[in-house]
Amino acid sequence: MAGGIQGGDQSVSLDLLKLKMANFAKERDWDQFHSPRNLLLALVGEVGELSEIFQWKGEVPKGLPDWKEEEKVHLGEELSDVLLYLVRLSDICGIDLGKAALRKVELNAIKYPASNTKNGIAESG
Amino acid sequence: MAGGIQGGDQSVSLDLLKLKMANFAKERDWDQFHSPRNLLLALVGEVGELSEIFQWKGEVPKGLPDWKEEEKVHLGEELSDVLLYLVRLSDICGIDLGKAALRKVELNAIKYPASNTKNGIAESG
Amino acid sequence: MAGGIQGGDQSVSLDLLKLKMANFAKERDWDQFHSPRNLLLALVGEVGELSEIFQWKGEVPKGLPDWKEEEKVHLGEELSDVLLYLVRLSDICGIDLGKAALRKVELNAIKYPASNTKNGIAESG
Amino acid sequence: MAGGIQGGDQSVSLDLLKLKMANFAKERDWDQFHSPRNLLLALVGEVGELSEIFQWKGEVPKGLPDWKEEEKVHLGEELSDVLLYLVRLSDICGIDLGKAALRKVELNAIKYPASNTKNGIAESG
Repeated sequence: MAGGIQGGDQSVSLDLLKLKMANFAKERDWDQFHSPRNLLLALVGEVGELSEIFQWKGEVPKGLPDWKEEEKVHLGEELSDVLLYLVRLSDICGIDLGKAALRKVELNAIKYPASNTKNGIAESG
Repeated sequence: MAGGIQGGDQSVSLDLLKLKMANFAKERDWDQFHSPRNLLLALVGEVGELSEIFQWKGEVPKGLPDWKEEEKVHLGEELSDVLLYLVRLSDICGIDLGKAALRKVELNAIKYPASNTKNGIAESG
Repeated sequence: MAGGIQGGDQSVSLDLLKLKMANFAKERDWDQFHSPRNLLLALVGEVGELSEIFQWKGEVPKGLPDWKEEEKVHLGEELSDVLLYLVRLSDICGIDLGKAALRKVELNAIKYPASNTKNGIAESG
Repeated sequence: MAGGIQGGDQSVSLDLLKLKMANFAKERDWDQFHSPRNLLLALVGEVGELSEIFQWKGEVPKGLPDWKEEEKVHLGEELSDVLLYLVRLSDICGIDLGKAALRKVELNAIKYPASNTKNGIAESG
């Protein structure tokens, strides 16, 4: 069966996470708390926790070669918290996050053409 | 064909976005800029732009019933920017974001059992 | 004696806080950790903790009439943490924060003239 | 005359900035927009702009020796924007930010005694 909603061996889709978050909130009667700005502030809180992991480390090389396994697990959890609130916020706002993200990649490709920027500088999106 | 990596009609997967971001950076010779802390600060920058959309609005109802179409498009772009940097940061750190997110949902389910919190209060994850 | 550096009954100055933070770091041999980007990420971490206080509350009225005293004390601590890292970051970057802030208020007054905006809308600075 | 409220040659006090922000809002009829969570999100937006300044730079040495004067001026403006919203948020919440900050420094001194941490590591406050 085709489809990207399943987890397991397959790649995890944004729709799967959206569904899981919606069920999670419903089962706990948390929909009442999940207003757009509540979720946005919760997202900011999680970005803060993500930043705390990196705050005293100075520059960190790609792949985190010197990090302990437990530090990487913790990092995965904080990255996930940001993602889960982002997925939930998008859902509550009625935004199709996957579709929007694909479109944004295309817009970025127009804004920063590959040929022109080969020796260029990175700029904010 | 089964699988969650494709876009199109199917649900967008985190692996698809990871691949697109990696190619995007390679084609522009931007890998040199994509260190963990550079990407983290870029993510914080995008969270700031997301917050600016909501900052003077007071409480906003679910579904954003009074927002103009162009405001929703803008919101989708800022949500996407946060997502794309989050996906890229995870990749550069060697974290499987989809796998980590599924695991975090399971951990949250243990931390906040559905039966105990039916009338409970929401707490930070 | 004139001067704004003292605390006590007088208004607390940014220079006093700068001095206290510098001494605090020196006494603990923490200068080695206080690089600009380390401090910036620590600031983001504290903004996250500040956001967590407000995240599940919905809209909050001015003066926080329904908050318990201990919640207000906690809020004061998180606001302070943001301020202290901001003061320290400015110092480490060689920026005179007080002078810069006074100048920014003047720039804002030019950007948003009082007479033109009497019935206007607030915009980001 | 003693006192720390004045600007000019003297050290800039938090009370002076509070007063200036309150007058600024009143003169523009902006009090209606300055609810606690609106101001908090505006603060997050400014922290995002501050982060954007540092995002592609890799590690930055103290004193910013290689930065152009205009970059430092820009940095001073973004640091100021964060400060001004922080001061305004505190005022609207009824928190005496200067008093709270002095108290927080004392609490930190108890939490991290100077003698014990001489060779210690920095931790989050």
